Amino acid sequence: MPESAVIHTDALVIGAGPVGLFEVFQLGLQGIHTHVVDVLDQAGGQCIALYPDKPIYDIPGLPYSTGRELTQRLLEQIAPFKPEFHFNQQVGQVNRQADGRWLVATPVQQFLTRALFIAAGVGAFVPKELKVDGLAAFTGMQLWYRLNPPDLLKGQQVVVVGGEDAAVEYAIALAANESQRAQRVTLLHRRDVLLASPAALAQLAELRASGRIRFVAGQVTGIQTRADRLSGVVINTPDDQSLTLALDALLVCQGISPKLGPIAQWGLAMERKQLSVDPASFATNAPGIYAVGDINTYPGKKKLILCGFHEATLAAFAAASYLNPQASGVLQYTTSSALLQQRLGVQ
Amino acid sequence: MPESAVIHTDALVIGAGPVGLFEVFQLGLQGIHTHVVDVLDQAGGQCIALYPDKPIYDIPGLPYSTGRELTQRLLEQIAPFKPEFHFNQQVGQVNRQADGRWLVATPVQQFLTRALFIAAGVGAFVPKELKVDGLAAFTGMQLWYRLNPPDLLKGQQVVVVGGEDAAVEYAIALAANESQRAQRVTLLHRRDVLLASPAALAQLAELRASGRIRFVAGQVTGIQTRADRLSGVVINTPDDQSLTLALDALLVCQGISPKLGPIAQWGLAMERKQLSVDPASFATNAPGIYAVGDINTYPGKKKLILCGFHEATLAAFAAASYLNPQASGVLQYTTSSALLQQRLGVQ
Repeated sequence: MPESAVIHTDALVIGAGPVGLFEVFQLGLQGIHTHVVDVLDQAGGQCIALYPDKPIYDIPGLPYSTGRELTQRLLEQIAPFKPEFHFNQQVGQVNRQADGRWLVATPVQQFLTRALFIAAGVGAFVPKELKVDGLAAFTGMQLWYRLNPPDLLKGQQVVVVGGEDAAVEYAIALAANESQRAQRVTLLHRRDVLLASPAALAQLAELRASGRIRFVAGQVTGIQTRADRLSGVVINTPDDQSLTLALDALLVCQGISPKLGPIAQWGLAMERKQLSVDPASFATNAPGIYAVGDINTYPGKKKLILCGFHEATLAAFAAASYLNPQASGVLQYTTSSALLQQRLGVQ
Repeated sequence: MPESAVIHTDALVIGAGPVGLFEVFQLGLQGIHTHVVDVLDQAGGQCIALYPDKPIYDIPGLPYSTGRELTQRLLEQIAPFKPEFHFNQQVGQVNRQADGRWLVATPVQQFLTRALFIAAGVGAFVPKELKVDGLAAFTGMQLWYRLNPPDLLKGQQVVVVGGEDAAVEYAIALAANESQRAQRVTLLHRRDVLLASPAALAQLAELRASGRIRFVAGQVTGIQTRADRLSGVVINTPDDQSLTLALDALLVCQGISPKLGPIAQWGLAMERKQLSVDPASFATNAPGIYAVGDINTYPGKKKLILCGFHEATLAAFAAASYLNPQASGVLQYTTSSALLQQRLGVQ
């Protein structure tokens, strides 16, 4: 579903992790409306993707929170500024226009922005690839890493690869939900030990017992094609046998891992895979582009969320005067400023 | 009550405001135990002294808190590190010793510290002086700005100057509490409009009705002395009359205001009354002395609590390697580090 029109904005944030979210907050205090792009399907970045339920003890004033709680708190905090989120999109291209604006493109959307904030953390969280000769050519046709829309594979013979929550849940969804039921569902993992919630495992056991899901232990070693179509995967079983599983579609759910991705091709000054910034403004070497959080580097840099909050703050001040050179730049406090309280909607 | 022994420590923080408290936290994560000195009688700095009940909206992850709440949250967060607080003390002198340590002196205590963190905000919050010719000479003998110990003025004729909470509460304490009752209590304010809690005002009204407290409207314009003692204050009343109030003791409660105080004499590099620091470490030009929060300046500086949290963090990392040059300096996360969780007492 491509949104075809170009979105014009003063501020675009790449990355909806905690630092990207706080960038929205500080830009909001400056009176600047923000769009946010993230490759994941929800806000939170690493906090959601890597440790939603793990404890964080070093956010100042929060003796304890989980990644999920911190994300929820930040979403609540930025709500007054009504940011517009664009999920499931990875930014590919960033190009400077003649008028100084930046054209930022994802596979489904283009943005024309005056200021760009790269809060991309350790990179885009993208699905871990299944690396088998010849397979990549079928990506988006018969090979999938994500089930979107949910009825994408309805009526097909599907092999789901993976042994954790996502794989188990996709297999269940394909086998159990009337609206998206596949013709046949095979769950393939190197051994019959699966890591998922007790509820999901119980439902899986039922579906296996009723024959709706078949479990096969093995690892994909090759593919089988027929008339330019992917017709099956060749697997190696734990007892070292070679088998072929026929399929119409292959859904790979081996987890996600961060990839710096195309950022390195945007022509920005870098140092050891980090974007070099000026710690007075967190500006990169490109006018109007700022980098905050784990993606940047400067003398003394520590990859801590709380440092990213500071970076996002100074970047917002710098961007405010970049966007409006006439602005006073006088520091106001949320405790006492009628203007800031009006923007926060608390007056 | 002088504590006479010199306290030896690796780390001393001047200022128990939010940034000083978070310095304790970050030093604690580094395994460094901390002493904290503050001129006020409790932790919180400006958050307690200036806006304990006012809202703060821009602490990341705390959509709303008051100065008091933020202070309480930080005290809870640093509790595992058992900082030792020294309240009611203003640091006067800071002198480098031959071995590189710093001798830090307050009127009642000396510290010999290897690293010093100046988190003194806008300066020490000291009582606003009553400026009348000749009065200052009686400070600490018949002129007081604070009632400590509480029975200091027992049995005396006391004039309390001020129109807000502290003045009203001191007048009540002197008139109502058996253990510290003054012979006579006069509350002096320029007009009979007082700003205090309803409960305090009600109690004051009772004590005025029963004659235990006398209220006089007027402003001090001069003093009366007899045999080198302060015998009275000359006041000007709202109807422009001159009166003399006899007294043994004068208790002045006109609020507090920040004073940079002796910091400017410590030989540290400054710029417009702020301490100049390196934003990679928040080190001043003196080895082992760091400045964090509103007291420091560097390119891009914004006087925001959340920026101070970042500054305290990088200062703690810098100090950890200053104190222990052999330390690895590898960044660990509270979410995953067994060592940090052990220090936090959460394992």
